[in-house]
Amino acid sequence: MTWGIIGTWRMVHDGLVAASKMLQENKRVGDAIEECVKAVEDYPYYKSVGYGGLPNEEGILEMDAAFMDGDTFEIGGVAGIVDAKNPVSVARALSKQKFNSFRVGEGATKFARLAGFECGNMLTERARRTWELRLDEVKKNNLNPYDGHDTVGVIGLDLSGSMAVATSSSGLFMKKAGRVGDSPLSGSGFYVDSEIGGATATGLGEDLMKGCLSYEIVRLMGEGLSPQAAADKAVYGFHHKLRKRYGKAGAFSLICMNLKGEWGVATNVDFTFSVANESAAPAIYFAKMGQNDTTVIEPITEEWLAAYEKRIKQPIE
Amino acid sequence: MTWGIIGTWRMVHDGLVAASKMLQENKRVGDAIEECVKAVEDYPYYKSVGYGGLPNEEGILEMDAAFMDGDTFEIGGVAGIVDAKNPVSVARALSKQKFNSFRVGEGATKFARLAGFECGNMLTERARRTWELRLDEVKKNNLNPYDGHDTVGVIGLDLSGSMAVATSSSGLFMKKAGRVGDSPLSGSGFYVDSEIGGATATGLGEDLMKGCLSYEIVRLMGEGLSPQAAADKAVYGFHHKLRKRYGKAGAFSLICMNLKGEWGVATNVDFTFSVANESAAPAIYFAKMGQNDTTVIEPITEEWLAAYEKRIKQPIE
Repeated sequence: MTWGIIGTWRMVHDGLVAASKMLQENKRVGDAIEECVKAVEDYPYYKSVGYGGLPNEEGILEMDAAFMDGDTFEIGGVAGIVDAKNPVSVARALSKQKFNSFRVGEGATKFARLAGFECGNMLTERARRTWELRLDEVKKNNLNPYDGHDTVGVIGLDLSGSMAVATSSSGLFMKKAGRVGDSPLSGSGFYVDSEIGGATATGLGEDLMKGCLSYEIVRLMGEGLSPQAAADKAVYGFHHKLRKRYGKAGAFSLICMNLKGEWGVATNVDFTFSVANESAAPAIYFAKMGQNDTTVIEPITEEWLAAYEKRIKQPIE
Repeated sequence: MTWGIIGTWRMVHDGLVAASKMLQENKRVGDAIEECVKAVEDYPYYKSVGYGGLPNEEGILEMDAAFMDGDTFEIGGVAGIVDAKNPVSVARALSKQKFNSFRVGEGATKFARLAGFECGNMLTERARRTWELRLDEVKKNNLNPYDGHDTVGVIGLDLSGSMAVATSSSGLFMKKAGRVGDSPLSGSGFYVDSEIGGATATGLGEDLMKGCLSYEIVRLMGEGLSPQAAADKAVYGFHHKLRKRYGKAGAFSLICMNLKGEWGVATNVDFTFSVANESAAPAIYFAKMGQNDTTVIEPITEEWLAAYEKRIKQPIE
């Protein structure tokens, strides 16, 4: 038996390092990926997930999250939840319910309160100020207001052979109230089957839900494709199809892992991710679309990491 | 070129008769299926869709709906919307938006008002009384309160070769506030590709989203399976898988149609549907699970129809 964990974006890395230790120590995959996502939700400088996330156009931070157990197919999800410190934990608790396991808006927030989850104002001063400035900019320059949709998605495999996936996102910055992307939607934002593997997505939710790519990647792995071949086939195939049929394809990036801890990534934008398994320590990689529907993957450079660190903390105004 | 339309449950029939005329007269599929679903939403005696739908445990009628265009993959959806007279029309309007095309809770209701859709109290006196009685029953007998989740789902094909699908539901009777099922979720509640065909689901949303069956049926039709073979394979395959892995499988019924107007149905409960195409006038059928993962389909009897008519209108108390 082996273990593995992969997550979207550079922001997932610190949580992933801690979660990979849990998996090595024979901890359960659900606990490991929940801890991993919570670390991203809790960090105030990640502006698209949890605390510090950027709000909707009304200045309200609405969040989406999901959890899926690959042994039982149990799914829990929340969409448009407010005030919950850790939406992923709320989603995981919901996954244990036979009925009412996906809850949205006020009903989701009510559940979190009633179930005793920590709640509070999740809007940081930095996020509020970013929103204010963006409102001004949009007004002045008649800009398209939408920007930023970096969901954290994590797939894990534990030493008992169980797999699970979790996602968390504050969605599109400046979204309309109640807008929901792919992150809490089964098949689009995530899917996992412990007898095959799991996949999760980040990018423009409106376009991701047109393709059900997480489900499709898991299915292709089930047909015997390697994770990388499955990701390439599903993602670039749909990228071309969407350009032909819809005229354009929004940004999307998918990661996947199979039950051996092997992984794959495909993306139509510049994308970072972090991954670890029995044979490789946690490391951050950079991915982009290559030629002939393949993906170019390289280790991240020290320069890139330093610039990232500076960028996420740079003063607002 | 040919046309066709298929919809879930006996309740869809009258709207489907009108919509099939529209398709025969070379009207666009989006208009035809929207009219079909609106007819179900408007009829006060259908207790799981639109006006007359049964409320959540707090007595609030929260509704879910979606619309997908099979030419462009455009999707619009609402979940947990209140007051909207025709959720399907709100969903269709959202499908035209590049961003913010899936909206939930208060944000969905806000959109409907702002976009000028007719709004009002959708709770009928009959639905309120049914809810009141159920509350008493549940309290007295310590019953499982959940019951009834008959989504209307319609797939259409027009003479220009375009396909579309729409769904509308008030969800599980007595659901928790903000609970959302599969109806507004791409891949689970519906999927359509005009170059292949479409599929839509009704049943226990919590379980349907574990399987992404609408997407899977369309995919199988794309591999060359007949609609009936695709429905049987996806539905019974997942029914068995879910019983093995989750311990049980909730009720689910799927219908599908391909780009030739041929159709298929599979279900693990007693299920009615209505269908019409160039070679067959609109008719209601009864379906149930047969032996060896096949579906038994029979025309509905006059006796069944008379009993149904009586049942939906029987006095409350």
